[in-house]
Amino acid sequence: MRSQSYKLKDTEAEYTKLPVVLTVAGSDSSGGAGIEADLKTFSAFGVYGMTCITALTAQNTTGVKTFDRTSQKLVSEILKADIDDMFGYEGAPLKVIKTGMLTREAIEELANLNLELKMIVDPVMISTSGSELLGIEGVKLCMDKLVERAYLLTPNFLEAKTLYKIKVEGGGGGGGGGEEEEEEEEEGEVHVANSDEFKKFVLKLQKLLGCKNLLVKGGHIPFEDEEDNAKGKKVVDILYESEEDVLTTFESRYIESENTHGTGCTLASAIAANVAKDKSLVESVAIAIDYVHRGMRNMSKLGFGNGPLNHTVHPKSNIDDVVKTSEGVEMVHFHNGYTVFDYLKSHPNVKDNWQRYVQHPFVKAVAQKELAFDKFFHYLKQDYHYLIIYAQMHGLLASKATTYQQAHAQATIIGEIVTEIEKHKEKLKAYNVDYDIDEVKPGQACVKYCKYLLNMGQKEDFLGIKIALAPCLHGYAEAGAYGQALRRENPRDSKHSHVFQNWLNDYTSDWYLNSDKEGKAQLDELTAGGISKERMESLVKIFNDVVLLEINFWDEVLQV
Amino acid sequence: MRSQSYKLKDTEAEYTKLPVVLTVAGSDSSGGAGIEADLKTFSAFGVYGMTCITALTAQNTTGVKTFDRTSQKLVSEILKADIDDMFGYEGAPLKVIKTGMLTREAIEELANLNLELKMIVDPVMISTSGSELLGIEGVKLCMDKLVERAYLLTPNFLEAKTLYKIKVEGGGGGGGGGEEEEEEEEEGEVHVANSDEFKKFVLKLQKLLGCKNLLVKGGHIPFEDEEDNAKGKKVVDILYESEEDVLTTFESRYIESENTHGTGCTLASAIAANVAKDKSLVESVAIAIDYVHRGMRNMSKLGFGNGPLNHTVHPKSNIDDVVKTSEGVEMVHFHNGYTVFDYLKSHPNVKDNWQRYVQHPFVKAVAQKELAFDKFFHYLKQDYHYLIIYAQMHGLLASKATTYQQAHAQATIIGEIVTEIEKHKEKLKAYNVDYDIDEVKPGQACVKYCKYLLNMGQKEDFLGIKIALAPCLHGYAEAGAYGQALRRENPRDSKHSHVFQNWLNDYTSDWYLNSDKEGKAQLDELTAGGISKERMESLVKIFNDVVLLEINFWDEVLQV
Repeated sequence: MRSQSYKLKDTEAEYTKLPVVLTVAGSDSSGGAGIEADLKTFSAFGVYGMTCITALTAQNTTGVKTFDRTSQKLVSEILKADIDDMFGYEGAPLKVIKTGMLTREAIEELANLNLELKMIVDPVMISTSGSELLGIEGVKLCMDKLVERAYLLTPNFLEAKTLYKIKVEGGGGGGGGGEEEEEEEEEGEVHVANSDEFKKFVLKLQKLLGCKNLLVKGGHIPFEDEEDNAKGKKVVDILYESEEDVLTTFESRYIESENTHGTGCTLASAIAANVAKDKSLVESVAIAIDYVHRGMRNMSKLGFGNGPLNHTVHPKSNIDDVVKTSEGVEMVHFHNGYTVFDYLKSHPNVKDNWQRYVQHPFVKAVAQKELAFDKFFHYLKQDYHYLIIYAQMHGLLASKATTYQQAHAQATIIGEIVTEIEKHKEKLKAYNVDYDIDEVKPGQACVKYCKYLLNMGQKEDFLGIKIALAPCLHGYAEAGAYGQALRRENPRDSKHSHVFQNWLNDYTSDWYLNSDKEGKAQLDELTAGGISKERMESLVKIFNDVVLLEINFWDEVLQV
Repeated sequence: MRSQSYKLKDTEAEYTKLPVVLTVAGSDSSGGAGIEADLKTFSAFGVYGMTCITALTAQNTTGVKTFDRTSQKLVSEILKADIDDMFGYEGAPLKVIKTGMLTREAIEELANLNLELKMIVDPVMISTSGSELLGIEGVKLCMDKLVERAYLLTPNFLEAKTLYKIKVEGGGGGGGGGEEEEEEEEEGEVHVANSDEFKKFVLKLQKLLGCKNLLVKGGHIPFEDEEDNAKGKKVVDILYESEEDVLTTFESRYIESENTHGTGCTLASAIAANVAKDKSLVESVAIAIDYVHRGMRNMSKLGFGNGPLNHTVHPKSNIDDVVKTSEGVEMVHFHNGYTVFDYLKSHPNVKDNWQRYVQHPFVKAVAQKELAFDKFFHYLKQDYHYLIIYAQMHGLLASKATTYQQAHAQATIIGEIVTEIEKHKEKLKAYNVDYDIDEVKPGQACVKYCKYLLNMGQKEDFLGIKIALAPCLHGYAEAGAYGQALRRENPRDSKHSHVFQNWLNDYTSDWYLNSDKEGKAQLDELTAGGISKERMESLVKIFNDVVLLEINFWDEVLQV
């Protein structure tokens, strides 16, 4: 017998908080739809998924073979177990319920809940399994019990027609919609031949249903694309937010694909995941559509029927990444010397923090030469570690650059950071530091800051990462200037005066001010066309997070 | 009413092939264990999951409240639907079945299957739900019907003790194991106080059970760490592969954590996912242990009881990334001028491809000045696009560098690539190329190659990415030399002689040969300690894949 052994690396504790979504739907054994699709989608978006399975289906890509309903008693106990543990207390993580294929039993139980949760209702009725399970009476029950209290309803066009018909006729009609398209016009009949008619229909339907927000998906009725006929048909999905009275159209290329199994479930659960992450509904829908499209196109066909999509594609994290052009969207513009950086640092959420940062007691202590040298030494060690991550982040930027000139610019910055690191090392050598700085472990504040940056590096696009790096680059220039001003007011000296002075001089030097200017110019270039209000909010959040991390970094130095 | 519209970006088709795993287990409504944990794990590893749900539980982190078994008829129909669609034909994707909490009904149906699939059996019996569901008679049924034909059995120590007891006593004993630890010694009683006793126990148990491979998890019996006492206890997991007669020990730090709900399910499904991805069993186990550990430590507590782990942590993709030290492992070493690059290009799987690449008809045509200029022009345009990705990849390397000097070296290479790009542009300008090269779309071979690199960039570590970039850097040096030699043998001229000669000169210039040498030196440094045989195989695959992509790149040029 041969023996071998591996010692595994230790892992560090991080305590990531995941938002939680509960899906109430059927199980699709083939894994492409139902709670299986929901869980895969939640995972893709970094959301924790719980389940309440309303029915088990024996199913594959060619169809549903058979199914068993879950008893009302078990549905009730499952909902109770899930909700008792995750909802209803301070800091409880469950934020959103997403429903898919429902049974009467599940509808009754959901209606009894009456919780302050956002409920996203995907009224599954067209799929073979759905119509068998629920039938038209079930759909009516769902409308009576759930639709009005839903945060969002997400029918496809065929389902929307059925809902409309039921409301207008006050009943009747089949469970499906596909077979009815050819029928004679009559009361409750819907004809939609273009985007404008579609918009009108969505508005009418929302009024009839009384749901807060309504998204009607147009995948079943692609329109000709007048502007760009060569590219084929376009799909229009329409969202109406009744409280804000805003109608948003999402237009995308029609995809000819066999990978359509579970696209509806996946779209609704992708929206639910993003809503749970506190994204706006508009942004959530845009990101969800993009995720479904990429999942469909990024998959080799599985199975003999309509194959599933690829839930493992990496989703985009913000609306700007998925949008080609937008019209009528509120934008933030920067001009006449009012830059995106000015916007960020003077934003109401950021302003005070920015002042606390660039006029931090650490800077004051340096300027007044009152800082204990061991604290400054501690700071230099922390900063040394930080700069290595800061260099890595610019490598990441180079890898996300869309032109080689942009990549080159980031590579050049890495060179400059290396100069800064070498300067730090020289400073320490001059003080006969007798141990190797590479061996020193970074403190909590530094680790937290670095992890935040690395996380942004994974999630964000080029602009997002640039914004995350901006407080450091530009804040140090302001802090340096603040320190020099204090120094001029009150020129004192102490034992280590020159090292403190040296530090202030570095960050007010032409070399540094040039980098500062260059960095701002890059931000201006990236935002020259303006930024949607939606996206700007998330950028403000990143900027503010990092300002707080900078404050924390210097706080820790003073507390050593 | 305000109206706004978004046009979404188009997405490109990619046709990713996902391996498929079927999990046969219970549903845990709280989402931390059962098929929910399995699906989350499969997604994390990029594997497509199917399900056969054996029972529905109403469960949360404080325990199982109630459950319903799935009828044998439905289990049978589900397995049939799943397998009919995904197994048993040429290229069928279903490769692995993973079982968790089983019922008698499910065991009977699984035993009837008798398929050529790898079955990974996690003998769940200790959890509250498991013992109720299966009982000791059920465990015996599982042993009789499934264990011998299992590819891998993954009991924890308590489960292993129960299995042992049943085999030795030929019956008796309770369903659980936890309560028995205090009992008097008797036949079938197991006492394991250290690694050596644990190893002996695992070997004995495998012989009794007759399963092909056995992994016994030691999380319930952490040992004192003699070598490194300050760091706390260590956990030992032991794998015995009977056919190879190899015993592998995985030693890791014991984690004090409340996030233990579903760790067993998750480990087994992480192993299943990696086996489905054709990883070796040893590598699969190491990666799975690391994934579970990081999931446990990377989670804020959820719920009131034993919380779930974070399934959304990014798993590592190879054994070297998760291992600190190894002993008795077969290594590949490079010395006496025999470099890792020599190993790669002369590997039996690579050798012929490497020759086809560096002596490609494209190079011959360039050297003989027989290449049509428009083909060469097409090549330059393709190469221009490729170089931009090549620069981005070095940005990614900089972002993964462990020292700032290493990051700086990658940044410097970006500078050199930019020089190369500018040279290409100059070459084209000299020919009065009248359209902007930035507007030209890359061809299929180029796109395929670039996507492969970007994918490796996401999945691989520093060394893996370096290996993916090696065929280009070093192959061009060899191709250049080959071209020059041909040229000397047969010096012909044609209309565009000097542009061809120029190209050959570039890749045989001191400038290029220096980069070539520098790149090989970096590879040698990265592999100075040797590489495990296991890891080397995956590096060979990457290297060979890229060599084929290089051949394809030039093939396409000649076919234009």
